[in-house]
Amino acid sequence: MTTNDSTAGRTGVWFVGARGSVATTAVAGCAAVTAGLHPATGMVAETPPFADSGLPALSSLVFGGHDTASCPLPKRAEALTAAGVLPHGLPNTIAAELEAADAEIRIGGPMPGDTRDDDELIAAFADDITAFIRRTGVVRAVVVNVSSTEPEPAADDPRLPASSLYAAAALRAGCSYVNFTPSTGLRSAALADAVQASGLPHAGRDGKTGQTLLRSVLAPMFVQRALDVRAWSGTNLLGGGDGAALADPAAAAAKNAGKERVLADTLGIAPEGEVHIDDVPALGEWKTAWDHIAFDGFLGSRMILQTIWQGCDSALAAPLVLDLARLVARAHEAGLSGPLPELGFYFKDPDGGPAALAEQFDALLSFAERLKESK
Amino acid sequence: MTTNDSTAGRTGVWFVGARGSVATTAVAGCAAVTAGLHPATGMVAETPPFADSGLPALSSLVFGGHDTASCPLPKRAEALTAAGVLPHGLPNTIAAELEAADAEIRIGGPMPGDTRDDDELIAAFADDITAFIRRTGVVRAVVVNVSSTEPEPAADDPRLPASSLYAAAALRAGCSYVNFTPSTGLRSAALADAVQASGLPHAGRDGKTGQTLLRSVLAPMFVQRALDVRAWSGTNLLGGGDGAALADPAAAAAKNAGKERVLADTLGIAPEGEVHIDDVPALGEWKTAWDHIAFDGFLGSRMILQTIWQGCDSALAAPLVLDLARLVARAHEAGLSGPLPELGFYFKDPDGGPAALAEQFDALLSFAERLKESK
Amino acid sequence: MTTNDSTAGRTGVWFVGARGSVATTAVAGCAAVTAGLHPATGMVAETPPFADSGLPALSSLVFGGHDTASCPLPKRAEALTAAGVLPHGLPNTIAAELEAADAEIRIGGPMPGDTRDDDELIAAFADDITAFIRRTGVVRAVVVNVSSTEPEPAADDPRLPASSLYAAAALRAGCSYVNFTPSTGLRSAALADAVQASGLPHAGRDGKTGQTLLRSVLAPMFVQRALDVRAWSGTNLLGGGDGAALADPAAAAAKNAGKERVLADTLGIAPEGEVHIDDVPALGEWKTAWDHIAFDGFLGSRMILQTIWQGCDSALAAPLVLDLARLVARAHEAGLSGPLPELGFYFKDPDGGPAALAEQFDALLSFAERLKESK
Amino acid sequence: MTTNDSTAGRTGVWFVGARGSVATTAVAGCAAVTAGLHPATGMVAETPPFADSGLPALSSLVFGGHDTASCPLPKRAEALTAAGVLPHGLPNTIAAELEAADAEIRIGGPMPGDTRDDDELIAAFADDITAFIRRTGVVRAVVVNVSSTEPEPAADDPRLPASSLYAAAALRAGCSYVNFTPSTGLRSAALADAVQASGLPHAGRDGKTGQTLLRSVLAPMFVQRALDVRAWSGTNLLGGGDGAALADPAAAAAKNAGKERVLADTLGIAPEGEVHIDDVPALGEWKTAWDHIAFDGFLGSRMILQTIWQGCDSALAAPLVLDLARLVARAHEAGLSGPLPELGFYFKDPDGGPAALAEQFDALLSFAERLKESK
Repeated sequence: MTTNDSTAGRTGVWFVGARGSVATTAVAGCAAVTAGLHPATGMVAETPPFADSGLPALSSLVFGGHDTASCPLPKRAEALTAAGVLPHGLPNTIAAELEAADAEIRIGGPMPGDTRDDDELIAAFADDITAFIRRTGVVRAVVVNVSSTEPEPAADDPRLPASSLYAAAALRAGCSYVNFTPSTGLRSAALADAVQASGLPHAGRDGKTGQTLLRSVLAPMFVQRALDVRAWSGTNLLGGGDGAALADPAAAAAKNAGKERVLADTLGIAPEGEVHIDDVPALGEWKTAWDHIAFDGFLGSRMILQTIWQGCDSALAAPLVLDLARLVARAHEAGLSGPLPELGFYFKDPDGGPAALAEQFDALLSFAERLKESK
Repeated sequence: MTTNDSTAGRTGVWFVGARGSVATTAVAGCAAVTAGLHPATGMVAETPPFADSGLPALSSLVFGGHDTASCPLPKRAEALTAAGVLPHGLPNTIAAELEAADAEIRIGGPMPGDTRDDDELIAAFADDITAFIRRTGVVRAVVVNVSSTEPEPAADDPRLPASSLYAAAALRAGCSYVNFTPSTGLRSAALADAVQASGLPHAGRDGKTGQTLLRSVLAPMFVQRALDVRAWSGTNLLGGGDGAALADPAAAAAKNAGKERVLADTLGIAPEGEVHIDDVPALGEWKTAWDHIAFDGFLGSRMILQTIWQGCDSALAAPLVLDLARLVARAHEAGLSGPLPELGFYFKDPDGGPAALAEQFDALLSFAERLKESK
Repeated sequence: MTTNDSTAGRTGVWFVGARGSVATTAVAGCAAVTAGLHPATGMVAETPPFADSGLPALSSLVFGGHDTASCPLPKRAEALTAAGVLPHGLPNTIAAELEAADAEIRIGGPMPGDTRDDDELIAAFADDITAFIRRTGVVRAVVVNVSSTEPEPAADDPRLPASSLYAAAALRAGCSYVNFTPSTGLRSAALADAVQASGLPHAGRDGKTGQTLLRSVLAPMFVQRALDVRAWSGTNLLGGGDGAALADPAAAAAKNAGKERVLADTLGIAPEGEVHIDDVPALGEWKTAWDHIAFDGFLGSRMILQTIWQGCDSALAAPLVLDLARLVARAHEAGLSGPLPELGFYFKDPDGGPAALAEQFDALLSFAERLKESK
Repeated sequence: MTTNDSTAGRTGVWFVGARGSVATTAVAGCAAVTAGLHPATGMVAETPPFADSGLPALSSLVFGGHDTASCPLPKRAEALTAAGVLPHGLPNTIAAELEAADAEIRIGGPMPGDTRDDDELIAAFADDITAFIRRTGVVRAVVVNVSSTEPEPAADDPRLPASSLYAAAALRAGCSYVNFTPSTGLRSAALADAVQASGLPHAGRDGKTGQTLLRSVLAPMFVQRALDVRAWSGTNLLGGGDGAALADPAAAAAKNAGKERVLADTLGIAPEGEVHIDDVPALGEWKTAWDHIAFDGFLGSRMILQTIWQGCDSALAAPLVLDLARLVARAHEAGLSGPLPELGFYFKDPDGGPAALAEQFDALLSFAERLKESK
């Protein structure tokens, strides 16, 4: 393990969606890797280029969060084990860590029938986060949205979507913020001033874990080879809660916008083709993404590339979420503020920066260097 | 199109394997693009970054070559049209260009029963090339090997393989050299001194057109994401002459060495898995490559990526071959000598340089800049 | 060729959608096979079991039809050649047959602004068919719907959909009828009495050419092996006119009903999973269908079968359409009337009979026997 | 479940390869289904058509066998649970049944350095089986070969292969016999007289669990639709012991013979294309089979079907092995003798009968009827 623990104290990670599959896998995985039970597969921030960047050590992370569900983390971890996401026996081995995190989870909202207005909700959420920081004695905390994708807000809705309420609460509690979902979060016009005034760093949006990850390496290949992409079609089959959430066309629209952006940004055109997201509960925590790319070669010859990606979304997301929490907390410590386009490597819909994965990786390595120098 | 014709004169392109599918497609395609009948899809050297690099214009290329087959180019072009490689009607439209190239093709060798020794063969081939240069008045010529893959030479064979005879002839005729095949070419210990003494630039080996192209973008993705590739298996189905040539296990071994190198170089380990190359004449000029990649994610979760690439090898190779001929001829003009690792973008088994396509592309762009400055 | 020409005279085939890809391919293919230019690949009725069933010979078929488009058949055939559906040179070789069929095509309808009511349209269409029979001297004619899929009719629409107008015209003209599309055709409650009274044979609905064909052999396999299909998901990418027509959700709904029926009928349950039909014009006349089948094996083990079907719909449909025209015309001659469930082999949504292809094939062979005996 | 226990007593199942994945899964699964813990998914003999055929009940089966390995069954079952083949917790729940079977396993052979000749080995194996029958009091026993594929025997080897020694021992002990592997078993000329004289029923060879199962439904589809299969290529990736055994080219040859037979028998021709079997230990107990089928449609149009089958071989094989043991034991009871071609449904290389799965299923159902009548 190469992480230097340059921060004297501990760092808080406050999950919005703290009882979901991603958060549960992140908490369990952090404990497992810290205990030396598993290698740090999938954690980019644990590779050598980040060794001296002063990231908070995995062992220094303290977890808490909001959720509207009540199933305890140890039970969620058992379910993820039965689903093949977590290894056998792990929930028992790290029961203490799961219970500790579970004790720091507070009811989120707004729940059905909740009569509080936006400001009251923000205040309540901020109080929860502030109390967590005080209670645990962490030197700072980062709020990370890993909850289910919410529908795109209607243009004329005066209320903020829930993801923005939590994001505003993060600012109010003095926390940096990561949005790993396609939901609005800080990207609400209503929050622009608060973001600006906060001087806090933040990163988003929509973690790049599967089909879009592939697209961000394949699309540049076609461009570099001067091949003419005619149509790029995709179908995603996913079970778990995410499948059900995305069966809502408005939520799917939010997700697809990110997926299509990487093609348009890289290819310079929007090729023909659609993206489907199907809810297939039988797949459990696993997902399958099929892509079909029709392209023209020399003299108009018709060629086809197809890809089939079969992965577990929580297992793909969790190490990236831990990376982001540590990188953004470190940026906060280093005094950086505003969006961090250097973290575009992690997102479908980043805050600027290049769209090709190779260039995003270069930017991330430069960011690691910059953090080193700011120590 | 943005090519500047900075060379006053014309440039010769001498194909070893001049009646094969790749050479025929290159000659036909060069004529078609020059005539404005088709866009320059697949020609990287026709994209803006190369506009001022002083490459010889497509319209300035003069074709000739060696082959042991005798089928005239116009007839080969008709066959490629029936096979769906060339567009309908094209052979008729560019009959003059095909006939002109056909008139510059000489019998190669050694043919069965040929009693000439290596030096006599080299001399004869060099004479053919020299005569072509004199007859056509080109300012310089580049020899490009696009013939069928030859079996790996036996360690104790005192004779040079045919590809090396042609490569030696190129040097003797003062020509730069490109090896688009996995055959030995200039990479024979017996030719090391001659290469060194010639002061000529050369590039190789084994054009990267399909499965390996994909591998050179996918393997870096796994590395950058810290995912653990456990097994990478591949099957290639190809018809045409290439399928038959590669059904010879020794020839397949030569080809597979290049394919596996990109994985080992990028991943830092050689994962489990084999590569098969099957001769399937029913596929005609088309090939299909299936790759199956088993990788571990966070906490040992098992995931799979599969890719299916369906392309026409000649149509993929021809624009790259034209690129290489122009880039190496320009390097010759610019006084560069020895291997050109900056052209690793085009090869499975390059003369050094990075293994990831993105970095190879950056190196190629730098090379384009360097050529600009040397004008 | 094994067909006996037991009918003294000729048989008319009247296509609804006579200028479409399927009809054009059928006319061209019938001429090509009759002339001995191509084998009868894809024509089940040309295999030995049908040799003595008294089917009208391919050489005895006379083509005509309705269409709202005006592009002449020879030009449509050229376009299909450029698209890779018809072999090079074929349109020239069989120009006479294409022109003969083109001369027998009449404008269909209702066209925009058409003020005729349903009965007037039926009468006009029937007159066209009757005139064709008289003019060509065929002993009988069969009307075959191969036009684009029409949207599912609204429940409260008092007008008949166009496909039903043509079907009613067939009855009025004393013709047997085949519906190769998912459109309503004869399956309108408003036509039930006329169908009954006519005493004419008819067959439908929705030709089974690709994804559903596969499903009708794969679904029985799961049942026979007592494997538990959990989810069956599919995506179809298609260009051509069909892609555009099916981009209309109402038309797609009509098509999908047939696709899902085969699963429900065979598996006894409707598994999870959706079917998408995407319009991808870049694919031209070709289509790709991806199916993903999640099934449980022994002790709940999770397994997956995926299929990718890449075919040309017109080339798949045309020989089946010719089969059906001949089988139904022969049934007419033999005095059969009403629906022919023995032809379920050809349809996604047949008029009864088994759902598994193997049993449908057995039923078809029995039908061939029955036709023999009725001679 | 509908099985009638028409036999008063219990039936022995003697596995050759009793500590392998298939046998372990069969023992564990039989216990799990008997206990009502899991449905009988994958067990054809538990479906309604077999209800009154007098098969021995699952609960009446008593397991034992030979193996050269020594790892106890409960430990093997734990390993299969970790590999995802058996459900969590199952080994604990059925520990008694696993231990009971383990107590009935004897060392097989010949082990390295074994000096016994063939007849001595046969006698020793037969003694083991006879002692098992006596000790457990079963009314009869069936010997089932589920051991690793052995290399094809050399033509001039005077010794019998191990699989034939076990098969001869089965006859000597008066047991019926099932060969679920591609090994020789009873199909040795040296055993022909003994088979004939024994009057015992037997079935084989080479269980049809994945790629060949698919081929036996897809190949008939092409034939029934008069489509022209040009090339059928396949690659199998498998881990576990089977992958390693089949990495031996001689063993792979034995396996491939069966795979190709189904195509030749169904299509009437042997299409182009090869079959590869790769050892990929990273896949554990899971296997992936990719098939690529190039076929011609109407007028020579080129089309492609690809299939990807991802399954767990042990979970696919175990229920079929239990089916076969019960069916052959029942045939023995009913006085049937010799090969049972009606069981071709289960085998790649059956003892005669049709090659298409649908017809094999019909034959199996007839066999179930015949057993009913013989009660």
